[in-house]
Amino acid sequence: MARFEATVSAPVNIACINASCVSRNPATVLILFQCAHRYWGKRNTALILPTNSSLSVTLSQDHLRSTTTSSTSEGYEQGDRLWLNGKEEEITKGGRTEVCLAALRKWRREVEEKDSTAAKMSEWPLRIASFNNFPTAAGLASSASGLAALVYSVSQLYVLPQTPSQLSLIARQGSGSACRSLFGGFVAWEMGQRDDGADSLAVQVAERDHWPEMHALICVVSDAKKGTSSTSGMQKTVATSTLLQHRINHVVPDRMSEISRAIAAKDFNGFASITMRDSNSFHAVCLDTAPPIFYLNDVSRAIIAVVEEMNRASLASGGGLLAAYTFDAGPNAVIYALEENMPMIVSTINEFFPQTLDFPDPFNMLAAATAATSARPQGFNNSVVREGGWEKGAVSRLIHTCVGDGPRRLSDEEGLLTVEGVPKTLA
Amino acid sequence: MARFEATVSAPVNIACINASCVSRNPATVLILFQCAHRYWGKRNTALILPTNSSLSVTLSQDHLRSTTTSSTSEGYEQGDRLWLNGKEEEITKGGRTEVCLAALRKWRREVEEKDSTAAKMSEWPLRIASFNNFPTAAGLASSASGLAALVYSVSQLYVLPQTPSQLSLIARQGSGSACRSLFGGFVAWEMGQRDDGADSLAVQVAERDHWPEMHALICVVSDAKKGTSSTSGMQKTVATSTLLQHRINHVVPDRMSEISRAIAAKDFNGFASITMRDSNSFHAVCLDTAPPIFYLNDVSRAIIAVVEEMNRASLASGGGLLAAYTFDAGPNAVIYALEENMPMIVSTINEFFPQTLDFPDPFNMLAAATAATSARPQGFNNSVVREGGWEKGAVSRLIHTCVGDGPRRLSDEEGLLTVEGVPKTLA
Repeated sequence: MARFEATVSAPVNIACINASCVSRNPATVLILFQCAHRYWGKRNTALILPTNSSLSVTLSQDHLRSTTTSSTSEGYEQGDRLWLNGKEEEITKGGRTEVCLAALRKWRREVEEKDSTAAKMSEWPLRIASFNNFPTAAGLASSASGLAALVYSVSQLYVLPQTPSQLSLIARQGSGSACRSLFGGFVAWEMGQRDDGADSLAVQVAERDHWPEMHALICVVSDAKKGTSSTSGMQKTVATSTLLQHRINHVVPDRMSEISRAIAAKDFNGFASITMRDSNSFHAVCLDTAPPIFYLNDVSRAIIAVVEEMNRASLASGGGLLAAYTFDAGPNAVIYALEENMPMIVSTINEFFPQTLDFPDPFNMLAAATAATSARPQGFNNSVVREGGWEKGAVSRLIHTCVGDGPRRLSDEEGLLTVEGVPKTLA
Repeated sequence: MARFEATVSAPVNIACINASCVSRNPATVLILFQCAHRYWGKRNTALILPTNSSLSVTLSQDHLRSTTTSSTSEGYEQGDRLWLNGKEEEITKGGRTEVCLAALRKWRREVEEKDSTAAKMSEWPLRIASFNNFPTAAGLASSASGLAALVYSVSQLYVLPQTPSQLSLIARQGSGSACRSLFGGFVAWEMGQRDDGADSLAVQVAERDHWPEMHALICVVSDAKKGTSSTSGMQKTVATSTLLQHRINHVVPDRMSEISRAIAAKDFNGFASITMRDSNSFHAVCLDTAPPIFYLNDVSRAIIAVVEEMNRASLASGGGLLAAYTFDAGPNAVIYALEENMPMIVSTINEFFPQTLDFPDPFNMLAAATAATSARPQGFNNSVVREGGWEKGAVSRLIHTCVGDGPRRLSDEEGLLTVEGVPKTLA
């Protein structure tokens, strides 16, 4: 009996301009979607339509990736099945995964209607296994890379003719910012205007090879001090923040064009300045909500202080900006910098924020460091971090990566499923 | 030789609607004044003219106060002298204290010009001693109470005819929000429109006796984890925050009238809601600055989470808001609540945030507490604070107080100076 399969890997992406209505924090997802609904009247929150456009950098799959195998066969038992990191997950009726698979099947049917020789895959059950090479506990955007990998894998399986932008329409419905993981390099998620979301999709702003010097240092911050949110009933966020409206209507549109220009011109000063401003603006709006939403914690603030000081010292001695921080819906910092400045940045962060997990140092920053390459800018004030530094594990781990390519088709040898359609790890 | 003296005490005040341009954090004062200057063109930053109006609650001098004795005598050696908490302070040429004393002398001269029998006090040297009954390290607004006490003391000494609002014009030039400490009860600082600041003064919105049930719990938060700001040169804050402009032009004016109405109506729900929203909005704007200004730390966030949860649980079981938090230019929380709810609030905060300093419990909250009076609202989720609670000293001390009266004239027996014009503590 015929059986088909396709294995792919897809990347993580980190926003420089944040979409206010996409949150990876489950407690706030519905709140922020309510907010999207409020501002867009008829727009359907199930479609995950954001209140503003956003822009991200795709990170290298050499370091972070979701690998997904999807297979289909007339001989499989009825009903789709899905495994994430070896554990079977229910595909909830009406849930986002089901929505994505239904949309992909619809496009496969169009292929089959045009070509009577094409296998009737759209009618067969699916088996999908996905694996992240980074832990969910790291708070990295695993739903973005995972959903993008799922969509891309099935689109490869179904041999769909759609472009990555069109595929991003489906990924968006799975998990908002997943749409940006359909491309490498620098990617924009254009918010679109239509109520049906047909124009809310990802487009590539620049390829990875346009600016390969763009590196990123992810600082995974522990949030042990945070209590759990109230579980008794859903918090009704009165998203009356007028700051949010101002951000949506004025601030972000301007920044989207400015940062696109900076990327095109490989202008790191412009890129960094806008990225930091937008991170702070996003978190300012979160704070201006009732009840307020806090993603940044004291360690996050300390990282901001170090980066601000690096930049200040650099500017003061006639240089440019060296690094840009950005924070998404959590305390983790992503520090963007050009490759040439990473030795200094990695050693500085490593010194001020000792981690509990070993730093793999994939680019050999620490091992090859010299006094010259690690030297902080003249006038750098070491007291911006409290005396004695931070306790070990305040930052639990560092991940050094760089701008990367878009989803990759892998060989069947790298497949995660057996011919019976169950994960190899469980067989 | 004639000698005159006047001893007064003046209160601390805590803002409910914050004046963005007044910061008690010395590192940021000049930055925010630059921002005032930028937004108001010709307005003189030396006059401390804020970008928006503000409103505060005056706290009880039974708990927190600055006591000031000023004396003057033809026989004193030339040159004014000032002692704060027993330590002599230089009265800097052109500094704010000198500006205040010059203004007060000018008004005394007018008295002397109208009445030839009046002592020519305006020509004699001043001796001023001031004492706070709370530590500066507590991060409480000691400059506000101190300056108000200085101005009021000298005005009493000089037997000036000016009203408290007119005196507030001078206090404002000493230390911004000091102007609000010229009144008891609920006080507004009207920003004014004039470039010379003649209409930027304090007015009373309601007397203490209008709403004596208004209590406050000050949670003094340690900020040990914070590094020191960069000292190499002055940080140039590019206060391009468009959120600030929006706050100034739209958000605050509306809130000023709403909160005044709520106070007049003794509407705690309205008062609390606006107070919390404005605190978050103020800090959101601080975050939206470049470089960002952080006043809240993890302990501050945790206190917010507890208060938000109290309120949520209360609303969910059909009650109203129980408490309102507000934060000024630092991590300290002030929690406003009506007297009837203070037993529960004090015992809850005391339990989650054990302090290093004993809580004097001036209102006998803990001693007289019963299970009934301490009971949290039904459904209160104890997990909003992390398991195990906070370490002792994260909140170093609690100060429980209530709305209080304005500056008081004290008897000469309570004076701080000897007849020679030096502090009794040093004699």
